[in-house]
Amino acid sequence: MGKLAIVGTVAFDAIETPFGKTDKILGGAGTFIGLAASNFNVDSAIISVVGGDFPQKYLDLMSNRNIDISGIEIVKDGKTFFWSGKYHNDMNSRDTLVTELNVLADFEPKVPENYRDADVVMLGNLHPLTQMSVLNQMTKKPKLVILDTMNFWMDCALEDLKNTIKHIDVITINDEEARQLTGEYSLVVAARKIHEMGPKYVVIKKGEHGALLFHDDNVFYAPALPLEEVFDPTGAGDTFAGGFAGYLTKTDDYSFENMKSAVIYGSTLASFSVEKFGTERMQNITDKDIYKRLEEFKSLTQFDIELA
Amino acid sequence: MGKLAIVGTVAFDAIETPFGKTDKILGGAGTFIGLAASNFNVDSAIISVVGGDFPQKYLDLMSNRNIDISGIEIVKDGKTFFWSGKYHNDMNSRDTLVTELNVLADFEPKVPENYRDADVVMLGNLHPLTQMSVLNQMTKKPKLVILDTMNFWMDCALEDLKNTIKHIDVITINDEEARQLTGEYSLVVAARKIHEMGPKYVVIKKGEHGALLFHDDNVFYAPALPLEEVFDPTGAGDTFAGGFAGYLTKTDDYSFENMKSAVIYGSTLASFSVEKFGTERMQNITDKDIYKRLEEFKSLTQFDIELA
Repeated sequence: MGKLAIVGTVAFDAIETPFGKTDKILGGAGTFIGLAASNFNVDSAIISVVGGDFPQKYLDLMSNRNIDISGIEIVKDGKTFFWSGKYHNDMNSRDTLVTELNVLADFEPKVPENYRDADVVMLGNLHPLTQMSVLNQMTKKPKLVILDTMNFWMDCALEDLKNTIKHIDVITINDEEARQLTGEYSLVVAARKIHEMGPKYVVIKKGEHGALLFHDDNVFYAPALPLEEVFDPTGAGDTFAGGFAGYLTKTDDYSFENMKSAVIYGSTLASFSVEKFGTERMQNITDKDIYKRLEEFKSLTQFDIELA
Repeated sequence: MGKLAIVGTVAFDAIETPFGKTDKILGGAGTFIGLAASNFNVDSAIISVVGGDFPQKYLDLMSNRNIDISGIEIVKDGKTFFWSGKYHNDMNSRDTLVTELNVLADFEPKVPENYRDADVVMLGNLHPLTQMSVLNQMTKKPKLVILDTMNFWMDCALEDLKNTIKHIDVITINDEEARQLTGEYSLVVAARKIHEMGPKYVVIKKGEHGALLFHDDNVFYAPALPLEEVFDPTGAGDTFAGGFAGYLTKTDDYSFENMKSAVIYGSTLASFSVEKFGTERMQNITDKDIYKRLEEFKSLTQFDIELA
């Protein structure tokens, strides 16, 4: 059983979908990653920053799931990062209505002393220099560093991003971002170019179309579970990453074979996350729920053809 | 070993992609279906129509693959159906440049006497009344009827289409068409509504994102093999359908479990089809090629998670 250090936003979200809208609720990449990973009972810490307006009950919610929150800085006279978005009818695209960086603008992550030797580091979507500063605080080379990023940093901090990803093992990125980063339309070719930038493993997320894991000449594909209804996609990608990181930390096996299982666990947890607004569903998943859905993944994808 | 009756166009295509362009080459849904199914050494016949301009060598090409061409009517003073299209840079969308129906305008399919008791009938994309007229010629109820269609018939012959699909077992349709036919965005809900229209099995094709097979509450998912390069997508959907139909005809097992394998075979053959212009690649596939790619499908999708 390893230790997992997570850096990422802890935030307020306000979300509007065709099914309804929320007030300010708990959100943020770090939050989704942490909640997903907590299903594996690993030692984990979230490194983040919030304002004085951040409710204690949200911090308690994390502590109660055995997440170390000593690395979440509280800026008493500051306000918590706030994002608001509205999804279109197809749920595949959204407009950002509000982005208030607030305390995130000056965020300097401080890894708690007892997490500077973490086995796995999960760098949630943040400025690549912020992600790098976390790696620089590690006193021992982690067994695995996973980085999530987005097109925004390719637009405004491409060189910093390229420098940071030299130092990581796994990148998670969506299909359009992989194409933007490499200038290649074919995801097979894009993944190979990203390998050459540093990461030995490339996870390309395709939303409702699943995710691909690339390593050398190997490819593994995990579909998204076909759902009757996607209620709120917010945090699905972070939940996927948290499940992926949590499973690997728990099993302490960083082989390609085991990463296949990690991808399936990531997809499984993401399929729960989208069922309710924000983190609501993630707060109430049982092991039994997870096993049931893993069985669904098996019957969705496993086949038996005898080859001559 | 069963008998497979295929109705569909036999045509000339002229194709332009970012990689080059062709003169008039062999094309048509019936052609792609027939070539794909011929890999399973089943007795098959193509029912279609061509003009006097259709080269004997193309007919020989089919005969040489053991396809019965006695149901391909030759209208000596007519011209063969011609389609021309240009793919965009992403290869996911295309513009139709020319559609000349020619002899197809008056096509009245005549099922050869010895195929009126076919075990499997594959109705390629044609007017739903033309598809229905094939079913009406059958002297024995087929074990399986598969129908392919497209949005064009939903726009201009919806009632005929709805009537025809009452009489079939499997429909193959792409994701946008499934949404158009049902008015439902969720493919799970769309598939259920299509079940209610008649077909017990619904195959939803998602192009580069693979295909879903629905039956009652069961779902199976076959990804498309991630390729370095898609050279020409023309005919990929028909090749998928031909592989699906050919495998089921050969195995004479129409259970959901066996249809999973049929979907994998369909995806496998489609992954070859897109590698060269038109039918070129489909004319030169060996059993060894197919087995090798089936192994790639296995390693792409199969995982082993021990559940507690």
